[in-house]
Parts: sequence; C-alpha cells; structure tokens
Amino acid sequence: MREVAIIGIGQTTVDEHWSKSIRELAGDAVLAALKDAGRSTVDGLYVGNMMSGILSKQENLGALIADWVGLHDAEAAKVEAACGSGAAALRTGLMAVSSGLMDSVVVVGVEKMTEGLPVETTAALATAADADYEAAQGLSFVGINALVMRRYMYEYGWKHADFAPFSINAHANAVNNPYARLHESITEKDYLKARMVADPINLLDASPTGDGSAAVVLVAADTLKLNASRRITIAGSGSAIDSVAVHDRIQPTWLSAAEKSSRKAYAQAGLGPQDINLFELHDAFSIMAALSLEACGFAERGQGPRLANEGQIRLNGSIPVCTMGGLKARGHPVGATGIYQIVELVEQLRGEAGPNQVDGARIAMAQNIGGSGASIITHILKAS
Amino acid sequence: MREVAIIGIGQTTVDEHWSKSIRELAGDAVLAALKDAGRSTVDGLYVGNMMSGILSKQENLGALIADWVGLHDAEAAKVEAACGSGAAALRTGLMAVSSGLMDSVVVVGVEKMTEGLPVETTAALATAADADYEAAQGLSFVGINALVMRRYMYEYGWKHADFAPFSINAHANAVNNPYARLHESITEKDYLKARMVADPINLLDASPTGDGSAAVVLVAADTLKLNASRRITIAGSGSAIDSVAVHDRIQPTWLSAAEKSSRKAYAQAGLGPQDINLFELHDAFSIMAALSLEACGFAERGQGPRLANEGQIRLNGSIPVCTMGGLKARGHPVGATGIYQIVELVEQLRGEAGPNQVDGARIAMAQNIGGSGASIITHILKAS
Repeated sequence: MREVAIIGIGQTTVDEHWSKSIRELAGDAVLAALKDAGRSTVDGLYVGNMMSGILSKQENLGALIADWVGLHDAEAAKVEAACGSGAAALRTGLMAVSSGLMDSVVVVGVEKMTEGLPVETTAALATAADADYEAAQGLSFVGINALVMRRYMYEYGWKHADFAPFSINAHANAVNNPYARLHESITEKDYLKARMVADPINLLDASPTGDGSAAVVLVAADTLKLNASRRITIAGSGSAIDSVAVHDRIQPTWLSAAEKSSRKAYAQAGLGPQDINLFELHDAFSIMAALSLEACGFAERGQGPRLANEGQIRLNGSIPVCTMGGLKARGHPVGATGIYQIVELVEQLRGEAGPNQVDGARIAMAQNIGGSGASIITHILKAS
Repeated sequence: MREVAIIGIGQTTVDEHWSKSIRELAGDAVLAALKDAGRSTVDGLYVGNMMSGILSKQENLGALIADWVGLHDAEAAKVEAACGSGAAALRTGLMAVSSGLMDSVVVVGVEKMTEGLPVETTAALATAADADYEAAQGLSFVGINALVMRRYMYEYGWKHADFAPFSINAHANAVNNPYARLHESITEKDYLKARMVADPINLLDASPTGDGSAAVVLVAADTLKLNASRRITIAGSGSAIDSVAVHDRIQPTWLSAAEKSSRKAYAQAGLGPQDINLFELHDAFSIMAALSLEACGFAERGQGPRLANEGQIRLNGSIPVCTMGGLKARGHPVGATGIYQIVELVEQLRGEAGPNQVDGARIAMAQNIGGSGASIITHILKAS
C-alpha cells in the first residue's frame, strides 16, 4: 500500500449558517482545502455526512458537492457512520489513494443541523442509536449517554464535579480557535450550576449542535516533493464496531470499539499511546472523553477523570486533548466533526496552532465515534 | 492492486417485507451470501442504502447490520449515492480488498420502502434530485425523468410505443426469477393502456418500489483455490458524476456519467462493448434503459429504442439486458438495486440462471445510477 499524505486543509466556522445551503457550506471547505493544497482538481471526493436526507431533504451529496466545486471529472460518494461519518469518509479516501486507484482525493465532512426545529434535530440524532430498541422507547441520544455516565459514576465512585476539567479544558482551548462555535471560557462554578439536560448530563457536559464543514486533501506521499514541515502522513488508521444499542454490550462502560480501532491504528503506525503528542478525542459528552482516554490506553480503566483532574489533558499536559476546543466548544456538526479533528491535527503538526500550539507536536491522534460507541475510527498522523 | 473475486451471493425477494426490520432484511442477504461463500466471517462490511434515516429512522447501518449477523470483528460503514448506493458500496469494498487493507468483505445493499405512506417514499426518493432547484419546485423524481423522456422523444422522433420492448423484455425475464417483485409478463397492448404516472411515463415505464436486500462476498483472488466455474472476478470498475439537476446539464438527453464510468471500466478490463455478453442496466424508467445503452456504446446516439425494437436486448439478442427482470420487474429497492444486479451477473456467469441463462456468458456488465444520471457506477465481471 502507498503512503498517504495530507497536503491541504479547509474549514468553515461552526455556527448557524442559515444563509448557506449544504452544498455551499461544504463547497467553502473543499475550495479552501484545495487552495491550501495548491491544487485545482483531484480524482475523487468523499463526503462524511449523517443527516442531510432528513434535515435538508438532500441525498446524493457526493455528486452534488463535486459538481458545485467544479470537480466534474472526480468520482464521488457519501459515507455514513452516524457521528463517525467524517472519519469513515476519511478512511474511504485513504483506501482510494493507498490502493493506487486514485492519486488524490478530497474528503469533506459537512452537517447542517440548525435549519429545522430543535426537536427535528433531536429526532435525527436519535437515528444514530438503535431505532427499534432504544429510540422507539423514547430514549434520546443524550438520554443514552446519561445512562452510561450514571452507571460509570456508580461503578467507579466519581462525582459529577469530577468531570468538570473536560469541559473547562475544551472551552479554554476554543477561545483561541476562530472557527469554534463557543468562545467563552468557563469555571468549575459555571459547570456545576449549568442547566440539567438529562441527569447527570448538564449543558456543559454536552457538545453544541451547529452547521459546519471541514475538508482535507489526500495524495500519494510518493508523488510529493515538499519541504519537511509540510509533509504530514497518515501513519495509522483503524475502524471497529460494537453493538449499536448500549444495553446489548457486555460492558456498557467500556468502549470496546475504541480499544479495537486504536489498537489497529497503533499497530499500523508501529506506535503506542506513549508516542502520541496530542489526542483529538470525541467529547460529544464529557463521559465519552473519559471512556476514550481509557479505551485508547491513556488512563487505567475507570480513571479517565483522574487524568483530567491532574491537568494532564491540558495543552502542556502529558496528553493534551481537544486542543482547538473539541466537540464541546468547537462544536459538533456531526458528519463534519471527524474532519475538523483531522484539520486540527494538521494545524498542530504544521506548528500553526497559534496560542494553542502543543510544543514539539510530531505525532497526533484523532478518534471519531458514531453512536454511543458503535462505530469508532481512529487515525494517527505523523509529521516528518 | 490485487485482483478481487466474488465468491458468495445472497438475496431476499423484493416484496413488502412488513414483518422484517431493515437489519433483519439485510441480515438475511448477508448470511445467505456468507453461506454461499462457505465463510463465517469477513474483515469488513459495506452497506449500500439511501433512505433508512428518513423511512426507518435508522442510520449507523454499518455497525447495526454487522453486529446483527455476528461480524463483531469486522469494520463497517454505509455508502450512499442515491439509487446508485449499492454499486458505490461495492466499489468501496473493492477498494478495501484491492488495496490489501482487507482480505475479504461483504457488501450488502438494502432498502425498505413500503413501511410508510407512499407520499413519504415519494418525498424520500426526491432527495436523489436537487433539493433546492428541482424538488423545491415540486418536481418529483418520476417527473424529472418524464421531462427527459419527453425531450428525448422530441429530439429523436420516437413515439411512446417505441419504448414498449424495454418493459416487455424485463417483465418476461422476471417471470422466471423467484426473487422478483412482479411475475406477470406483459404485451404491447398492456403497455399502451397502462395508467399514466407523469406524462409520458406510465405505470409500465416505471420500476416498482419494494423492500429487499442483496449481498456479495468479495475476497482477494490470490487467496483462492477454486474450480474455474466458481472463479468470478471484478475485471473493471468505474464511477463518475454529472450535475444532479438535469437542467444544469449541457445535454440533458445524454448520460455523460454513464459514458465516463463505462469507459473507465472498459479501460481497466481491457474490453469494449463488443465483449460484453449481458448488461444489467438501470431501467428505473424505460427512458433510462435507452440512454444507458447509448452512453455505454451499445447503440448510436438516439438509437437505444431501435436496439430494443430489433429484439437485441432479449436473452438471445446481441446484448441481453435485465436478464432477471431488471429494475422494472425484479423491482427497485433503491440502495439494494446495485447489488441485485451483481448477484444476477454472478448467477449468469456461474451458469445458474435457469431458464434465463444467457448462453456462454463469460463477461457481464452492470451499471447503477444515482439520481437522474448524477452518480453512475459501472462494473464488469469475468468468469474464468
């Protein structure tokens, strides 16, 4: 298989983009990424998106977006794995180039979530869960995560306040990210008094919805003649699944698909958790941040919150997470999130993360989760 | 790139499967394909599906189906390209195996279209068109195809009756296919007196909706030790796009994406139209059958209906099409159709097509179309 490099990134702000259709929003990110890559065309375009059929009455996004940006000779398709759609599309783009079938692709994640009524978005998000055995019982997506968090607190003895550092860290980092949805730093006091959404998940445990798009340009690394600072390759990629319904899992407080997918990525890269300089994890809810750290080998089982309370997840800690605000504060336009994470890794590995730069970042990991742990895709990037 | 072989096929009937959820329907096809392949597991599962989010309130189908059939160690995702989703998923599975990333995958197409009200299905189908510039104007999907057919009849001087042989041929072939939605052969008189749907498209120009699922198992050909009659490889694969809105195309009566994608597949296979023994084309509407034959090099421009009227598309003709009933009579569960086509090619290449067997079939082509010509994917299979 050929090595694959990321040579271009683009993103829109995560916001309420009521004046832009989904093709325009995605087009902005694709054109920015192509410009950054210094290219006008690619062989293929893959779209990570979850809910355009329901919320925008629009499928066939691959052809729609490729046509809109003028990539008339590219082939195109949409890839869906619920909130993990972005990384699932990236993995497809990676296969296209590493197989030799294509020399270059653009992968774009896009989601427009604020167009309809909030209740419509909530119902659309529930399609990530098991429609027959979870959603049909009236369980919302946040409700499912609340059950997991409550069980986790019971099993390991953590209090709600122990999850505060995840939210505080994400909000602090988003202040310096011009593309983030929220720019307010918060205190532990803010966290504790936030409105309850689904006990024990309050408003500062949950990531905000939003409209947004992010894109990356992938090429076969052997076609490159770049200076070293721009050579960023995908060193590892892994994908795994678990039961969609949380009650079907033997261990509801363990992300087995995160463990499996990160192990695959580590093995491919010949690396381990100790080699990772920063980790863009999927903090859709603060409980998911804790579970991800544990499943990927950064914390002992049940000890994710300890790592956060020790300050190890901050920019100067042993494993900085959510360095540009994470899902919690950059925002979580679901199908786009997996690509925002990759864009942010590239910013860090290029040394272009501004005040949020992780010193000496050379190896960085992103993990994107679809459903409450059902579809999990991990990527490790490396700067040379 | 490694050569990829198809070693297992499975399908459900196309019908109103009200007693089965979408995971059960897909699971039936996957398990049948695995059994046919003599395997209990694969490395990956790709789902071709268009409308599960809208009609079944269920996304995350990759993990859902893989978990349901017990493929707990496989990775999984859904691929969407409107009514071309099945072949788009196949192409993804092909990349996964040919890249060396995986040794085996199952690709399953599934659609459940009869659960809700017909008006809901009609609205869901319209998401294959341009939501902002076609559907928002009140154009249904059949309405768009009717405009294309009317224009084509005007440009080339064909009458409605000239399209009858497409429908007659498909219905005749479906009689012997136990999996088909419709088993009635029809006459030209039936065709001419059928109820109008969207002038000039009547009920016998249009494919029926339905619930159904079909699956294939792909493996790296170099891992095989099979007797020759079972060795069927994917010799060519091509995918291309066009504008989603038909009015955006310079030539609305020419399927440029069909031309481009078939050329790519021919080039990869080192073959041309003269080498193809049968062609499963995308006759969602009879006009699309005519346009496909022209764009893929089987008929001169504007002369698709002539080929049909000469009887060349019949089982004993120069280029048999819809040999098991096509979309018109086997039925068109949209995201599943592209895989039904592949299953039918394999039946023909194995010599297991019963009364519908095309004598001496060794090279066969399938083409799956998403939208009214926007996303088109072509595959050529070869028996050795």
